Amino acid sequence: MSVGAPLLAGLRIVEVSAFVAAPLGGATLAALGADVIRVDPPGGGIDIDRWPLHRGRSLYWAGLNQGKRSVTIDTRSEAGQRQVSRLIAAPGEGGGIVLTNLPVRGWNSYAELSKLRPDLIMVVITGDRDGGTAVDYTVNAAVGFPWLTGPEDHDGPVNHVLPAWDGMTGFLAAFAILAAERHRRLHGEGQLVELSLADVAMAMAGHLGLIAEAILEPEPRGRFGNDVYGTFGRDFGTRDGRRVMVLALTPRQWLSLGEATGLSPDFSDLESHVVADFRKEGDRWAHRQQLYELLEPWIAERELADVGKVFDQHGVLWSPYQTVKQLIADDPRASTANPMFSDVDHPDLGRFLTTGSPLRFGAAAPVPPRPAPTLGEHTEEVMREFGLEP
Amino acid sequence: MSVGAPLLAGLRIVEVSAFVAAPLGGATLAALGADVIRVDPPGGGIDIDRWPLHRGRSLYWAGLNQGKRSVTIDTRSEAGQRQVSRLIAAPGEGGGIVLTNLPVRGWNSYAELSKLRPDLIMVVITGDRDGGTAVDYTVNAAVGFPWLTGPEDHDGPVNHVLPAWDGMTGFLAAFAILAAERHRRLHGEGQLVELSLADVAMAMAGHLGLIAEAILEPEPRGRFGNDVYGTFGRDFGTRDGRRVMVLALTPRQWLSLGEATGLSPDFSDLESHVVADFRKEGDRWAHRQQLYELLEPWIAERELADVGKVFDQHGVLWSPYQTVKQLIADDPRASTANPMFSDVDHPDLGRFLTTGSPLRFGAAAPVPPRPAPTLGEHTEEVMREFGLEP
Repeated sequence: MSVGAPLLAGLRIVEVSAFVAAPLGGATLAALGADVIRVDPPGGGIDIDRWPLHRGRSLYWAGLNQGKRSVTIDTRSEAGQRQVSRLIAAPGEGGGIVLTNLPVRGWNSYAELSKLRPDLIMVVITGDRDGGTAVDYTVNAAVGFPWLTGPEDHDGPVNHVLPAWDGMTGFLAAFAILAAERHRRLHGEGQLVELSLADVAMAMAGHLGLIAEAILEPEPRGRFGNDVYGTFGRDFGTRDGRRVMVLALTPRQWLSLGEATGLSPDFSDLESHVVADFRKEGDRWAHRQQLYELLEPWIAERELADVGKVFDQHGVLWSPYQTVKQLIADDPRASTANPMFSDVDHPDLGRFLTTGSPLRFGAAAPVPPRPAPTLGEHTEEVMREFGLEP
Repeated sequence: MSVGAPLLAGLRIVEVSAFVAAPLGGATLAALGADVIRVDPPGGGIDIDRWPLHRGRSLYWAGLNQGKRSVTIDTRSEAGQRQVSRLIAAPGEGGGIVLTNLPVRGWNSYAELSKLRPDLIMVVITGDRDGGTAVDYTVNAAVGFPWLTGPEDHDGPVNHVLPAWDGMTGFLAAFAILAAERHRRLHGEGQLVELSLADVAMAMAGHLGLIAEAILEPEPRGRFGNDVYGTFGRDFGTRDGRRVMVLALTPRQWLSLGEATGLSPDFSDLESHVVADFRKEGDRWAHRQQLYELLEPWIAERELADVGKVFDQHGVLWSPYQTVKQLIADDPRASTANPMFSDVDHPDLGRFLTTGSPLRFGAAAPVPPRPAPTLGEHTEEVMREFGLEP
């Protein structure tokens, strides 16, 4: 196999963006070697100072813009609008692609920009499908998960801290760019592609069966704390005060848990007593409280290291809970032992563990993890390269 | 623009999968017109009966397999292995693509299958990068979010109910297929593509700045309940017992909130008193408790309908919290008023609101939402079509 070039070398995307989803889409393409040029206003956009910070600089911005080129152009002026338009529409087989989550109307609409390059591909991310403002946190509130998440006895909604809908939308935006570029390669035409956070969230709720459940069942599921709905899985405490997540999703995993803990006879006794078949997920779920009561003391009597050793020997599906600090301190997966990571120097922030793409392509050269640019770092370079002098 | 055919018409993917990520990747491609053929053992794989159920049938399986063809083949026999291999390697420009999250070794390894079709594309999803078993819930425990999620005074980890890492991995798997297919179109060669849930989760934590924060800051963030870290956003209660999520991420949104509620003068007074500039997210975060105290009574005195009316008039960034039942009952976005949805008949489950792709391509025909097949529905058809009679 030829592994000379990165997989997406030759693809050029102009990203006019802020916050998470669109920048993540761009970063996903950049991590495979695409030339992603992010355009911001001088001084930065509305996300330039977003928390978390280090020495007053945004770690968020640095994380979401890894591997891109940064250009600042003032699009309040017509001259600036012309520059950005020409950059977007610049020639080249892999160019003519723009990704944005900012309002598109007038000069930066698909109709106007495609006059400069008829095969333009434009991917627009909105909050709501109709263009209305919505963000991860409002979409999550609307779609039902905060009433299903969190401690069973808690009486309010529980938000995700992870902007999961932004993440999914960002990856789908990257997918959409490749899908549209494939169409252009086959049929020679560009197109406008639209997606919204709200539609992504509702589609996901549909795929998980939650919408069907709410329609078809008079009493859809409630909130079950850390119990994994419909199967066996929950957190347990160890003697040394750590928590572990333990699951048995398959018959094999269920057997492993009994073998690892020596609790197989107790599980069998309970099975006979309640007339159940614990090889079935539904039966493990129905009798979970009694199963928890058997497993709890076994874990509570042991230290994390001992629990982990026995569980790993027997192929139990489990993990310790870790803080992010513990992840980077204790877990070799989050270290340079994992080729996805490198220690990378960032000009403002110093040196820290930085990820590349989680995708590994056998026939393409991996792209080493790269830092984000500083704001406007490539303005002059890009102006020259694309002949954009005002 | 030619909008005659669905965007991915002509692409054929054989999916040998279970659970969420791989089936979601397949469903994402099927929703744009790809021919996705899911292969299961007779009687179904380990996810055939996963909850939620309706009339004893899995709504989960139905949601994750929308728009696919279903084939059952017993791969414990060599004859079955040969059939699946031939199906995967069947000729056709858009064929020769397999997506799986099941163990690949021996007959179904990339090395063996690519003997039958040298330009084979194979995307393999694992839990851990090294092939070790991990699922959404163990990955989430390891990567730190359960200690950041949930009520501030709660003393244990809080799991996501949404399998967010599965979702992101599924969409990235679909992206990976198009990226590899692009490479094959350009260079004529196939390849093995690998990704793991754990790497996807750690890459996302990196993009959000969490890994850098844990490395660079002696005291990274803790748990802040429903407060959106580093800005202004939280849930509030209305007079009629509903909850609303209210945010101000931008200076404009902050002004809107003050104007909508008439609290601008109070916000200004506080600004002078504490010497802050509430146009800055960091300042809104630092003084959030006092800001909450101003906003809480304004919302608590009003009913949801009145809060919503005023907020919408002023462009406040907000949403009511809804259960999934409320979403489908009250929110027009989750109805056939949204072209992403249709009422679709499923042979076993009846008629219910079903989603198509959240992606809208201007130059391609949309694919109407389709039900999942019944298990094995297309076995004979596919056997005939690909000449797989034993």
